[in-house]
Amino acid sequence: YKTFLTEGSAVGTVNGLAVVGANNGLSDFSGIVMPIVAEVTPAIQKGRGEVIATGKLGEIAKEAVQNVSAVFKKISGSSKDITNMDVHIQFVGTYEGVEGDSASVSIATAVISAMENIPVDQSVAMTGSLSVRGQVLPVGGVTAKVEAAIDAGLKKVIVPASNFGDIVLDHAHKDRIEIVPVTTIREVLENALVDCPAKTELLSKMGGPVAEGTKAVMPNKKARAGGNVA
Amino acid sequence: YKTFLTEGSAVGTVNGLAVVGANNGLSDFSGIVMPIVAEVTPAIQKGRGEVIATGKLGEIAKEAVQNVSAVFKKISGSSKDITNMDVHIQFVGTYEGVEGDSASVSIATAVISAMENIPVDQSVAMTGSLSVRGQVLPVGGVTAKVEAAIDAGLKKVIVPASNFGDIVLDHAHKDRIEIVPVTTIREVLENALVDCPAKTELLSKMGGPVAEGTKAVMPNKKARAGGNVA
Amino acid sequence: YKTFLTEGSAVGTVNGLAVVGANNGLSDFSGIVMPIVAEVTPAIQKGRGEVIATGKLGEIAKEAVQNVSAVFKKISGSSKDITNMDVHIQFVGTYEGVEGDSASVSIATAVISAMENIPVDQSVAMTGSLSVRGQVLPVGGVTAKVEAAIDAGLKKVIVPASNFGDIVLDHAHKDRIEIVPVTTIREVLENALVDCPAKTELLSKMGGPVAEGTKAVMPNKKARAGGNVA
Amino acid sequence: YKTFLTEGSAVGTVNGLAVVGANNGLSDFSGIVMPIVAEVTPAIQKGRGEVIATGKLGEIAKEAVQNVSAVFKKISGSSKDITNMDVHIQFVGTYEGVEGDSASVSIATAVISAMENIPVDQSVAMTGSLSVRGQVLPVGGVTAKVEAAIDAGLKKVIVPASNFGDIVLDHAHKDRIEIVPVTTIREVLENALVDCPAKTELLSKMGGPVAEGTKAVMPNKKARAGGNVA
Amino acid sequence: YKTFLTEGSAVGTVNGLAVVGANNGLSDFSGIVMPIVAEVTPAIQKGRGEVIATGKLGEIAKEAVQNVSAVFKKISGSSKDITNMDVHIQFVGTYEGVEGDSASVSIATAVISAMENIPVDQSVAMTGSLSVRGQVLPVGGVTAKVEAAIDAGLKKVIVPASNFGDIVLDHAHKDRIEIVPVTTIREVLENALVDCPAKTELLSKMGGPVAEGTKAVMPNKKARAGGNVA
Amino acid sequence: YKTFLTEGSAVGTVNGLAVVGANNGLSDFSGIVMPIVAEVTPAIQKGRGEVIATGKLGEIAKEAVQNVSAVFKKISGSSKDITNMDVHIQFVGTYEGVEGDSASVSIATAVISAMENIPVDQSVAMTGSLSVRGQVLPVGGVTAKVEAAIDAGLKKVIVPASNFGDIVLDHAHKDRIEIVPVTTIREVLENALVDCPAKTELLSKMGGPVAEGTKAVMPNKKARAGGNVA
Ligand SMILES: [Ca+2]
Ligand SMILES: [Ca+2]
Ligand SMILES: [Ca+2]
Ligand SMILES: [Ca+2]
Ligand SMILES: [Ca+2]
Ligand SMILES: [Ca+2]
Ligand SMILES: [Ca+2]
Ligand SMILES: [Ca+2]
Ligand SMILES: [Ca+2]
Ligand SMILES: [Ca+2]
Ligand SMILES: [Ca+2]
Ligand SMILES: [Ca+2]
Repeated sequence: YKTFLTEGSAVGTVNGLAVVGANNGLSDFSGIVMPIVAEVTPAIQKGRGEVIATGKLGEIAKEAVQNVSAVFKKISGSSKDITNMDVHIQFVGTYEGVEGDSASVSIATAVISAMENIPVDQSVAMTGSLSVRGQVLPVGGVTAKVEAAIDAGLKKVIVPASNFGDIVLDHAHKDRIEIVPVTTIREVLENALVDCPAKTELLSKMGGPVAEGTKAVMPNKKARAGGNVA
Repeated sequence: YKTFLTEGSAVGTVNGLAVVGANNGLSDFSGIVMPIVAEVTPAIQKGRGEVIATGKLGEIAKEAVQNVSAVFKKISGSSKDITNMDVHIQFVGTYEGVEGDSASVSIATAVISAMENIPVDQSVAMTGSLSVRGQVLPVGGVTAKVEAAIDAGLKKVIVPASNFGDIVLDHAHKDRIEIVPVTTIREVLENALVDCPAKTELLSKMGGPVAEGTKAVMPNKKARAGGNVA
Repeated sequence: YKTFLTEGSAVGTVNGLAVVGANNGLSDFSGIVMPIVAEVTPAIQKGRGEVIATGKLGEIAKEAVQNVSAVFKKISGSSKDITNMDVHIQFVGTYEGVEGDSASVSIATAVISAMENIPVDQSVAMTGSLSVRGQVLPVGGVTAKVEAAIDAGLKKVIVPASNFGDIVLDHAHKDRIEIVPVTTIREVLENALVDCPAKTELLSKMGGPVAEGTKAVMPNKKARAGGNVA
Repeated sequence: YKTFLTEGSAVGTVNGLAVVGANNGLSDFSGIVMPIVAEVTPAIQKGRGEVIATGKLGEIAKEAVQNVSAVFKKISGSSKDITNMDVHIQFVGTYEGVEGDSASVSIATAVISAMENIPVDQSVAMTGSLSVRGQVLPVGGVTAKVEAAIDAGLKKVIVPASNFGDIVLDHAHKDRIEIVPVTTIREVLENALVDCPAKTELLSKMGGPVAEGTKAVMPNKKARAGGNVA
Repeated sequence: YKTFLTEGSAVGTVNGLAVVGANNGLSDFSGIVMPIVAEVTPAIQKGRGEVIATGKLGEIAKEAVQNVSAVFKKISGSSKDITNMDVHIQFVGTYEGVEGDSASVSIATAVISAMENIPVDQSVAMTGSLSVRGQVLPVGGVTAKVEAAIDAGLKKVIVPASNFGDIVLDHAHKDRIEIVPVTTIREVLENALVDCPAKTELLSKMGGPVAEGTKAVMPNKKARAGGNVA
Repeated sequence: YKTFLTEGSAVGTVNGLAVVGANNGLSDFSGIVMPIVAEVTPAIQKGRGEVIATGKLGEIAKEAVQNVSAVFKKISGSSKDITNMDVHIQFVGTYEGVEGDSASVSIATAVISAMENIPVDQSVAMTGSLSVRGQVLPVGGVTAKVEAAIDAGLKKVIVPASNFGDIVLDHAHKDRIEIVPVTTIREVLENALVDCPAKTELLSKMGGPVAEGTKAVMPNKKARAGGNVA
């Protein structure tokens, strides 16, 4: 059953990317599109917001959700009353569980989209870990993930700048998708959210603090200008 | 002991559907009607509502309850003070425990019926998973569940649109029930709640946000028009 | 040591019924009177009532307490400030632990008696599970439980209507107790609480919502009129 | 090291009685004096009182503390703001842990003494379980406990009325202590607290509700008049 | 690395004493100085103070911290708003964990020093358990602990009065330290805190309630006058 | 992937130092730079700040975070409303988990930098445990950590004064970094934070209480003046 879109836009819904078979020690694992859906509701306890993530998350994935919560509490918490919001995050269809922190950028984008009510471009896929200050950190299996995005018919894939040099595409996949290396959550949102006044306002609000210190995770900055990999 | 109704209406009471024998690896499991009962009471802690589900729920079933809570908090939370409500959800008679997320639409319907005090049509059965944004997601064992609904004398069964093509009924069961494929919780409520002014108001309130983005889970939309399966 | 009364009345004290030996797989288990005592006190945390049950309860018994709490929060929560009450429930003398949900009607009756300060008739025994909406659901071992009530010198026993047909009494026990089949907690209270103005007021308050939908669990309604079983 | 007094009086301090060796299946266990000390302090969390018991309590002992808390919350909670009190209960010197509910009357007496600032007579020892409504329930090992109280030089021992008939003293112990069978916590306090205006006020306040229903646990009432056992 | 002082004074810092090797069943364990450091900070949760102890505490040590908290909440809680204080207690350097309750007097002294901002005399060492009412209770290994205090160059050691008779010093250690047997936390503070107006005020405030009932743990009172042991 | 900076400055970001291979019992472990990132956000629960640390922390590391929280709550809690702040602490890239308390000074510096919005000099690395009163305590593996800082191109390394004498550098590493022995968190901040008015104000505010009692951990004070080790 296909549980994600590849065109149009939707609020709170992001095409994440994951690898399967990575835990069996074999080098040949394959990538899949793993949808992340978020919703923000009135809190069921007055003044006591909660972040609730489902999908049988492993320890690292649970900690990733905590790190991501620092990012969205910082971005939306000054202008909204997050103490009266429950934030729900759902990994769709992960009945066998999910591990790792590479969905961090997807979770952050889904939640911020839901919180700010700005739609996400459904032709975009993404992967990337996050620091609590919004820096995009490297992940594994980037080539397999990009291939999965291409195979699913997606048009753009957002990857950590520090992983940009890792991507080696075979002839069948080459030049069939736009690869966007990023270093901050601000750049992720810039590329994944649909253009609208609310998006412009959000990005201008984020201008300062989140981008700060991000040079730390961008050794391959020139690669970004270099366009697609081979 | 029969613990469910097959006609009339009742608040907070839904005829869910489940499969038994699905965990022993055999292909021949059978469906059953599994009643879900919900009640909404004054909270025992001021401003601190709680969602309490019983029936020896497994990990996936507990997470399904959390996902469903996003749906009813969003739907009822803007017009009601959910911080002073305790929401009780009971799987009736599941002494051996219950697993899976296919009761999600049943739980959502039972709770919303109890919260809004709108009766549920007891001639209806249903199965389906839910996203936190109210999209109906596919489940397993749909043919066996539909057969169980027919055998119990029920008149209508609500199934995920993405499962509609999976239903293969034998001669004995064919054409004996109305099968309604749905893609959102709004459609579930439209088909399961008894017509009344409160229902009309609820559905009009839900018009926008819940239906949004639901195209993602409806690859079989044309099948819906096609009527009954063979 | 006898730890229960068989005549007179007492607030917050109910003669429950249980079976022993039911878990060893033998068909010959026997019934016992298992007293349930409840007390309602000022909460030790402001605005944060708690339900505390003791007696080494197993998982199903703990869930039964949660289901029962929906019933008494609904019944008493609109007219009393339950957020400033701690509800204590004690299974007396169950040092080896207690399992199952058949004490649900006893717990509900003891708590409502304590909350409303209406005495319980101590010549009455009872058994029955409960839905969160106050419907009486079937239990096991009813014949053995009725025999235990008779042997203890009790005068009336309340049983789920759906279990009424299960009772088969031998010559020694036949016709020695009044058996009352019930379908709702309202009927339980009607039969177990001592007649007084507070009881009349309570039952009239419960008239509507609790009885609603209870036809679902009463397939044997005619049996009630049929009097004692053989 | 002797950690208890045998004369005079002290607030919040009670000479409980326990048996050692009871868990090894032998019939010859012996009794000991087990001091219980309680203190009531300003709560460290505003409006959120807590009951904290130490001494490596087993499951039944922890539940006994919860049952006892119903008793002291009921007795003192109407006239004092228990939501701003932390109640500390200490089993002194039980480094190997403590199990059972026979210290319930000792805990209740120590806490009520500390809460009401009424000294306890240190020449008194006691044993007994409690219902959540203040009824004294039977315990095991009463003969060994009475012997221990005698050997320690204590002058009076309070026991459950239902255990009064169990006490069989040998020639060396006979007639050397006053044995007081009781059926309610009110009678315990009457016998253990030092006479003073605060005690008189407390007992008169308790007159009604706590004594109610206590006939249930007093089959041996005449034995009390009969004086010492042989 | 030496992590404690042997002269001067410091707030919130106490030279506790412990034994090592006591758990391996050998009779020859040795004593060490084990520093306890406490700090009192603004609470991170409004109106919800917390007591946080670190150093890999075992079960008995954790319960000792709870018992000690009764003592400092009672002493400082009437004049200070402890609901807005977080109390931190650190066993320094106990990477292998710490067990037992013999550091109770050290913890109490460190916390009260930090709370009241009264320095502790760093030439003093101490050992002793505490009741929740501030009585000093006996501990094990007192001779080894006193020897450790002497070897570390400390000038005074505070011990439970009930342990005073246990101290047997060899020729090398005899007469080289002042040993102060105590029966209450008030006496501990009198001997360990640096003389200042705040100390005088504190002790006068404690005059009544804490000392009460302490005769129970002081069978060796005359020994105190007798000076050093042999 | 390099996930840290070696020049410039960044808020909430510190170059900690750790050793790997220390747990396998071999004497030849090596040091690494382990970045610590902190962020302070609006609390998601009104008046209920939380400290959340990620990176698969072991028991000692979790306790270190608690000890460090005493330090930053004391330093910032009097002038800021910490009850409405969530403090996030992230050990970057520690997928195998992290143990020990030697990152304490790094955590404290990262959090205080984030709370006070004062940048940290990224050419600085540091290691050191902390007492709850802000004293720097000794750690293990200092030589390997200093070598790692040198190899990474860092210019200054902050170490506990009590570890200063432990550092033995080989010819390749000698004289290539400034080593700063410290005894208090105040000295750490003095050396790691970028000079600015906010820093001056912070240090002057900390002047008294934190430095107090720190002589206890500084046996090598003269070594500091002695400059580099050999
Ligand atoms: Ca991903
Ligand atoms: Ca754009
Ligand atoms: Ca179902
Ligand atoms: Ca209709
Ligand atoms: Ca029963
Ligand atoms: Ca009647
Ligand atoms: Ca006892
Ligand atoms: Ca008297
Ligand atoms: Ca000690
Ligand atoms: Ca002095
Ligand atoms: Ca470090
Ligand atoms: Ca400088």
